[in-house]
Amino acid sequence: MKKLMNDSKNIVEEMVEGYVKAHPKHIKQVPENGRALVTAKETREEKVGILVGGGSGHEPGFMGYVGAGMADGVAVGNIFASPSPDPILEVTKNIDKGAGVVYLYGNYAGDVMNFGMAAEMADLEEDIEVGMALATDDVASAPKAEKEKRRGIAGEFFIFKAAGAAADFGYDLNDVVRVANKANENTRSMGVGLTPCSLPQTGEPSFELGEDEMEIGLGHHGEPGLEKGPLESADSVTDRLVNDILADIEINKGDKVAVLVNGLGSTPRMELYVMFRRVEQILSEMGIEIYRSYVGDYITSLEMGGASVTLMKLDDELEQAIDHPVDCPMFVQK
Amino acid sequence: MKKLMNDSKNIVEEMVEGYVKAHPKHIKQVPENGRALVTAKETREEKVGILVGGGSGHEPGFMGYVGAGMADGVAVGNIFASPSPDPILEVTKNIDKGAGVVYLYGNYAGDVMNFGMAAEMADLEEDIEVGMALATDDVASAPKAEKEKRRGIAGEFFIFKAAGAAADFGYDLNDVVRVANKANENTRSMGVGLTPCSLPQTGEPSFELGEDEMEIGLGHHGEPGLEKGPLESADSVTDRLVNDILADIEINKGDKVAVLVNGLGSTPRMELYVMFRRVEQILSEMGIEIYRSYVGDYITSLEMGGASVTLMKLDDELEQAIDHPVDCPMFVQK
Repeated sequence: MKKLMNDSKNIVEEMVEGYVKAHPKHIKQVPENGRALVTAKETREEKVGILVGGGSGHEPGFMGYVGAGMADGVAVGNIFASPSPDPILEVTKNIDKGAGVVYLYGNYAGDVMNFGMAAEMADLEEDIEVGMALATDDVASAPKAEKEKRRGIAGEFFIFKAAGAAADFGYDLNDVVRVANKANENTRSMGVGLTPCSLPQTGEPSFELGEDEMEIGLGHHGEPGLEKGPLESADSVTDRLVNDILADIEINKGDKVAVLVNGLGSTPRMELYVMFRRVEQILSEMGIEIYRSYVGDYITSLEMGGASVTLMKLDDELEQAIDHPVDCPMFVQK
Repeated sequence: MKKLMNDSKNIVEEMVEGYVKAHPKHIKQVPENGRALVTAKETREEKVGILVGGGSGHEPGFMGYVGAGMADGVAVGNIFASPSPDPILEVTKNIDKGAGVVYLYGNYAGDVMNFGMAAEMADLEEDIEVGMALATDDVASAPKAEKEKRRGIAGEFFIFKAAGAAADFGYDLNDVVRVANKANENTRSMGVGLTPCSLPQTGEPSFELGEDEMEIGLGHHGEPGLEKGPLESADSVTDRLVNDILADIEINKGDKVAVLVNGLGSTPRMELYVMFRRVEQILSEMGIEIYRSYVGDYITSLEMGGASVTLMKLDDELEQAIDHPVDCPMFVQK
């Protein structure tokens, strides 16, 4: 597949260089490690630091979410691969303001290992307290009884948003972790894949699907989903996604939710809004209130075609968190 | 090509429905015409109204740019087709606060005709004064001596931004038109196409290119560009685009510019930031200051692959306009 790139070996470094050059008032590299990016703005002493991270190729996730109201720093991995412990540790040292640092990342084996190692090093070598919260929002990736085995996908956005707000509110480390975990417990996502992306290094498609096929529950790195079949109408696909979510988490009449209809990279906004329209119809018929809506590319997989629906059930605390303003290079909320 | 849609005949109506439902605090439909959308917020009396519009399929352009600091309303056309005069007139009536309305749109025959007719109707039937400013930023679309024949592409974003700010500053109709025209005079774009999009109605690709080909100067609706050839490196492509811009407009050492690296729909942010990196290198070597940067999907062509570079040369007035905060559903600037 065609890419606007130079040597594929340098694409992540060149992206990071462009990113830092484009947003110098927002973000800077830690001198010790080019894959360690932190906010360029002054952070309050005693604020709990928020560190996000994961593989590249999911932009705006994860580097796009560093800024006021969300994360203080990001560790940047290779494409679809966890960052190593070094940049995680460098970000940790840089953003610790005496109140510790919370790591937020998706539940993938490489991330679990590397963020875990970095947390140990932060504790032993730097005496920095680290808390962790994993995103496990992807309903398709494991049965309900084994939620702790599920992967994190677009719902990561809500978890970052909630924890970032909690840290800004002045919550301590345990309370920020509690809010992040509550956000994750209350969040469910279901996705559909239509067309693959390709890695710059290989040019090979990340999965195969027929000309008129879709795959329900396909993962963000092309992990197999629940079911392949002929592409259905937007309403029918949206019904499947929302029904699977509602079968997995109790959301009742009178409850409030935040909704994210997320594009995977090459799905036009037009199609995402057609899907949102159907989500709104379903929830409105059930008497569930949509408190806030996000429609667009929030966590992508390069140029993959497809979309996901995410619902986060809100209580007063999460409602306040979701309302909190944000000022990041790739996401601003007033 | 695969689309998440229902009946293709209804896709624009369903998108608009989803859009209004997703952002009820920001946007509403004018009761008389479903293709006429206006800001849901109270607008100051005597503020000049800003109306944008054009075909659908360019989201966030144009409906995404209605909100505080940018447009007061949008007339929504069919996919890649001008809106008819009716929704333009309905928006005009709705957003006129006694100081007249300025129409901002790209220089395409259909738009010129329909916006012109609506302006006449607004004058004759409603006694509303209308000003107009056309975007002609696409360097590839006509020779320098015939700038008035050029098409509008991603630079429309800067023109909307500048004129929206001017109206917010309390400028009168003539001054808003003057600022919009100055923004257009100071703005140049050059694009490259890699892969086509397809219209929902036909499923046919909007143009044809070989497996390893690119097309420099390709238009936003697949209009032929200047040159087809083998895909080059990101740096080489960016050099071509920036050089063509700098050959067309005098920007010298010490000048300030706003930069937009715009994705056409399916180009990952990773590639756009790699391109931005090169734009920054070129300008920095020339001693041209990048005052503000925008990197992402600002004016798209459904799922087209490719990107464009836009430079707007700034003076004090445009600098102030580009800094002005914006709160739209698809674009927020603090």
